[in-house]
Amino acid sequence: MKKPLVGILMGSDSDYEVMVQAAEALRSFEVEFEMIVTSAHRSPERTAEYAGTAAERGIRVLIVGAGAAAHLAGVVASETTLPIIGVPIDSSCLKGMDALLATVQMPAGIPVATMAIGKAGARNAGLFAVQILAGSDERLAQAMRQSRQTMAEGVAEKSDRLQQRLIADGLM
Amino acid sequence: MKKPLVGILMGSDSDYEVMVQAAEALRSFEVEFEMIVTSAHRSPERTAEYAGTAAERGIRVLIVGAGAAAHLAGVVASETTLPIIGVPIDSSCLKGMDALLATVQMPAGIPVATMAIGKAGARNAGLFAVQILAGSDERLAQAMRQSRQTMAEGVAEKSDRLQQRLIADGLM
Amino acid sequence: MKKPLVGILMGSDSDYEVMVQAAEALRSFEVEFEMIVTSAHRSPERTAEYAGTAAERGIRVLIVGAGAAAHLAGVVASETTLPIIGVPIDSSCLKGMDALLATVQMPAGIPVATMAIGKAGARNAGLFAVQILAGSDERLAQAMRQSRQTMAEGVAEKSDRLQQRLIADGLM
Amino acid sequence: MKKPLVGILMGSDSDYEVMVQAAEALRSFEVEFEMIVTSAHRSPERTAEYAGTAAERGIRVLIVGAGAAAHLAGVVASETTLPIIGVPIDSSCLKGMDALLATVQMPAGIPVATMAIGKAGARNAGLFAVQILAGSDERLAQAMRQSRQTMAEGVAEKSDRLQQRLIADGLM
Amino acid sequence: MKKPLVGILMGSDSDYEVMVQAAEALRSFEVEFEMIVTSAHRSPERTAEYAGTAAERGIRVLIVGAGAAAHLAGVVASETTLPIIGVPIDSSCLKGMDALLATVQMPAGIPVATMAIGKAGARNAGLFAVQILAGSDERLAQAMRQSRQTMAEGVAEKSDRLQQRLIADGLM
Amino acid sequence: MKKPLVGILMGSDSDYEVMVQAAEALRSFEVEFEMIVTSAHRSPERTAEYAGTAAERGIRVLIVGAGAAAHLAGVVASETTLPIIGVPIDSSCLKGMDALLATVQMPAGIPVATMAIGKAGARNAGLFAVQILAGSDERLAQAMRQSRQTMAEGVAEKSDRLQQRLIADGLM
Amino acid sequence: MKKPLVGILMGSDSDYEVMVQAAEALRSFEVEFEMIVTSAHRSPERTAEYAGTAAERGIRVLIVGAGAAAHLAGVVASETTLPIIGVPIDSSCLKGMDALLATVQMPAGIPVATMAIGKAGARNAGLFAVQILAGSDERLAQAMRQSRQTMAEGVAEKSDRLQQRLIADGLM
Amino acid sequence: MKKPLVGILMGSDSDYEVMVQAAEALRSFEVEFEMIVTSAHRSPERTAEYAGTAAERGIRVLIVGAGAAAHLAGVVASETTLPIIGVPIDSSCLKGMDALLATVQMPAGIPVATMAIGKAGARNAGLFAVQILAGSDERLAQAMRQSRQTMAEGVAEKSDRLQQRLIADGLM
Repeated sequence: MKKPLVGILMGSDSDYEVMVQAAEALRSFEVEFEMIVTSAHRSPERTAEYAGTAAERGIRVLIVGAGAAAHLAGVVASETTLPIIGVPIDSSCLKGMDALLATVQMPAGIPVATMAIGKAGARNAGLFAVQILAGSDERLAQAMRQSRQTMAEGVAEKSDRLQQRLIADGLM
Repeated sequence: MKKPLVGILMGSDSDYEVMVQAAEALRSFEVEFEMIVTSAHRSPERTAEYAGTAAERGIRVLIVGAGAAAHLAGVVASETTLPIIGVPIDSSCLKGMDALLATVQMPAGIPVATMAIGKAGARNAGLFAVQILAGSDERLAQAMRQSRQTMAEGVAEKSDRLQQRLIADGLM
Repeated sequence: MKKPLVGILMGSDSDYEVMVQAAEALRSFEVEFEMIVTSAHRSPERTAEYAGTAAERGIRVLIVGAGAAAHLAGVVASETTLPIIGVPIDSSCLKGMDALLATVQMPAGIPVATMAIGKAGARNAGLFAVQILAGSDERLAQAMRQSRQTMAEGVAEKSDRLQQRLIADGLM
Repeated sequence: MKKPLVGILMGSDSDYEVMVQAAEALRSFEVEFEMIVTSAHRSPERTAEYAGTAAERGIRVLIVGAGAAAHLAGVVASETTLPIIGVPIDSSCLKGMDALLATVQMPAGIPVATMAIGKAGARNAGLFAVQILAGSDERLAQAMRQSRQTMAEGVAEKSDRLQQRLIADGLM
Repeated sequence: MKKPLVGILMGSDSDYEVMVQAAEALRSFEVEFEMIVTSAHRSPERTAEYAGTAAERGIRVLIVGAGAAAHLAGVVASETTLPIIGVPIDSSCLKGMDALLATVQMPAGIPVATMAIGKAGARNAGLFAVQILAGSDERLAQAMRQSRQTMAEGVAEKSDRLQQRLIADGLM
Repeated sequence: MKKPLVGILMGSDSDYEVMVQAAEALRSFEVEFEMIVTSAHRSPERTAEYAGTAAERGIRVLIVGAGAAAHLAGVVASETTLPIIGVPIDSSCLKGMDALLATVQMPAGIPVATMAIGKAGARNAGLFAVQILAGSDERLAQAMRQSRQTMAEGVAEKSDRLQQRLIADGLM
Repeated sequence: MKKPLVGILMGSDSDYEVMVQAAEALRSFEVEFEMIVTSAHRSPERTAEYAGTAAERGIRVLIVGAGAAAHLAGVVASETTLPIIGVPIDSSCLKGMDALLATVQMPAGIPVATMAIGKAGARNAGLFAVQILAGSDERLAQAMRQSRQTMAEGVAEKSDRLQQRLIADGLM
Repeated sequence: MKKPLVGILMGSDSDYEVMVQAAEALRSFEVEFEMIVTSAHRSPERTAEYAGTAAERGIRVLIVGAGAAAHLAGVVASETTLPIIGVPIDSSCLKGMDALLATVQMPAGIPVATMAIGKAGARNAGLFAVQILAGSDERLAQAMRQSRQTMAEGVAEKSDRLQQRLIADGLM
């Protein structure tokens, strides 16, 4: 088994449904990852320990998802100089706006690379980790370029299928 | 010199103008305090060290001010079981809304008692610390009740002065 | 029967589902409480009477939940010098943002210690009341420290269970 | 001296600049008013006393301005069945959004007729009080209708002057 | 059949579920009303015609509900000097925030007395209309005072029933 | 088959339910249109190609719907001088507020005519395209005027039916 | 003197500084316009009269700017089938968010083509009017295409000048 | 002269004051960069050309700042698989909230790593670019770790200086 290059952290196991999108994106590029639950507030030592030792264990990028007063990505960022990607999660009644602001509005000095709220953001976190790794891995760089082309073709196919729907609805 | 009962923390020395309101409130009740700068992100060890040892040094309440992605109060709260009072500070272009949400929307398990954004909140943080301490200090309890009466009288005096202003403006 | 140390107030009986979280938190620390419905607007005398006599009946902390233009915590705070903990409740179409601002943005002089919107906030209100009482009750202080340790262990257990889920989803 | 028909209340004398707009509107219709400072939180008894006796002293409408967690209008409304007109004041860093929500989102049972934030709202509060009184005072009703006509003529005059400005700017 | 004193207008028949709350409030005080659908945008002449003739037909107050870019209350207010009560309706994906701002932020000169978003606001609009009419109708004034007392008693009864619920949940 | 005058673009086929409202509005005025899926981000070349050649293929107006960070309308606008109508779509947890701001806040130089969020906006986009085309097509101008009259009559009919509902509910 | 093709309306003469941007945009394309002040609320008859007769006087497009509860564009749109371009103006303490929502969230049936808040929006309103007129005026179409090219060249020039600034700042 | 590894793009030269923070951060780590002005909307070809050729010219990371409907980062991201760091700029009356949402809410497939609004975000964009490059450059990794230590020491020094200020203010 190969050593993971990416760590995926989440503040609560209820964030799994969202954060699994990051895992799937990494898996589709055959990038090894590990995934753990740790909380900025409920398990601060565990969080500091994990973040502080990630680099020496070979981790290259950390993806961190959290909701509400989402401090986890910032706290992890304070313990390591690895690139941190933050995913705000919509888990309070404020629809993720709290998590977005708590993740993105980091003070000068400690960046958190913030993605969109929720599943789209988690998937993009996985892709962005691949883009970072691709800087020194030509296989990944090429796979990413290929993936973009596939995406563009998928759009054209969806557009073609839309014509059938217009006909079915009597609009063409 | 008596040992401080309240610690006032702020994420940046630029927060002093706001947080000094808490100090003045404590001073007016003759409650000893200490005040330090420490950042959740730029000095995580210093923050954890301070929060983790505050109780054993005799601190009874911590007041924590921070702006933007204001993680400091939550991070301090994760390192101690002392009551934490959070003051969101208006130091980004979002006018303190980011700091408010990042301070107040704490997950179940680790409370932060959040005050209003800015100077009113900092002053109230000082007063709330006094109210907590007053639970086991009858001198403080009585001083707080007295202070409320003085406040009420001040309102009536301001109202009286308003009549002069109405006359000056030709409205009475 | 022991006398209650904490009073839990709510503006409407429809807030019970949220505020019962505070009751359960207090119960888990064996702190006696009482719970009543009273409205800032529909029963102002009842509210003033309750708040004005709470201290002399031995109440040490008041937890107040309300939604929409949530005035109840502020009104209660104006009638007593006991520490008031406010819980904004998501009961209008504005998703609790109205209740949050109406609870937290108190003017200088009368603090309300505001918790997160909804159930997490209500649970934290109960915990924060325990933290206040723990200032002069070593049994509570120790129980709170123990509870934090249990929480941290719970996070690690959840993380372990997550690995099974990754395997089940074919991601590990 | 005639007895006042309208009471103008404000939570702080710093609200005078805004609330004087209401006074001027009433004055322009020769409606007698009184103006006092009283706070929902700092002087609750004074507020309840004033609101509870206003009707018997001949007051017919109350105009109430407050900022931040603007509880004053709601608190006054809970103590009387006179019509209450609320004016949210922009006196915190949230630009009056807090005052607006705390004033307008009243629960079913106790209405507060809310005006726009700030000076426009205060002026309209005065006009709305006149509209209420005009329901049983034909002089006021006629004066209000006349005032509308004057306003419409003022718009046309401003439009005429605009043409000069366009010419001055070389655009006509 | 007595002539209606209050007109209830709504921009769309889909607003009926909300606006019927105003009708029920008026009915409970035996105040006659009429209710019509008219749109600021889809039927501007009908709206102007209705608003412009309401006073002479004996209408004393108009209650106007609308959602989204809720112009109806303002447009009606521009055509009459009767008091206009606006009810913002949550009928777009912005949860009534659009309707609230479009109703309440009226420019100086033309007030709209704005209530809370949705059903609570519609009910309060009915009650506020009664409060206006009560200014010259002692029967209504007395009924309104009586209604407040009944409300306060209702709160106490709900509080009593809450105790049963606490026992059932094993918390008392 | 006549050549289309209007192109309807959407960023994802999941936007069809919303954007079909534009198609139906155009169809009701017998205006020919075409509808395609293309993404600002996933298929940038396809988007530039379509937008850049639309005018020469006889397209006169483009209607563009997109959600979240809705860049599509702006990107299309940058590639053609045809009038672009943007429809923000509610497809993220921020309820379309993100799409609204990303569509409407275009910098000086490249306008996007923005409609309401969601289905109402899509329908209005179709109607606005007709209004643009009607500037040089008297048949369309007359049909649009006729359609307005039908709308106004529909409002009156809905109002009549409302009276039945009031009677059924025992309110008349 | 040629007859104006575009009418620019604003709710108050204080909106001139913003709306003159639309005039300047039209002037730069040699499109004749007229500009008037009229208010949805203060001069409803004037507004309806102007809007209702604009088409027959040869006006082809209306540009409408208003702030706060910005009803003017919607009210004008209800009186004509000409294309209406709305410009939200930042003239209240809510920074134009109120004007934006009141302008853009129009109900299905009556579109208002909304531009960005403030000066950028006013300039774009002028440009969008040109784009509409260009549909049947090849001179305008060509001038608009030319203008786009000039804009692109301007960007490259600004970029060149930026290099000097970097050198001056010691960064290159 | 060494070839640049980072490209800094901005939508307007008025964004320079903000984006120069990114340049200074890169300079302090001796990372070569280039800086250009290009607009998503005013110069789409220039933007596509720059983004599409950046990788082959040796650029490893792109930092993109834009305000209002900030499409530039997303548009650049659609033309390259290099990592894109987005900086929302506060250049409209909505205080950067529009730029934040338009930058961060990217759809699944095309990530933009979003930083805080304004100068803090621009500085962090520079630091995050260094963190990405440090993944394959041990000199940078070590410099970044050293920089963190210096930051932590700076916090302690600021805290020491604060004590003088407290004494000067008579609070210690």
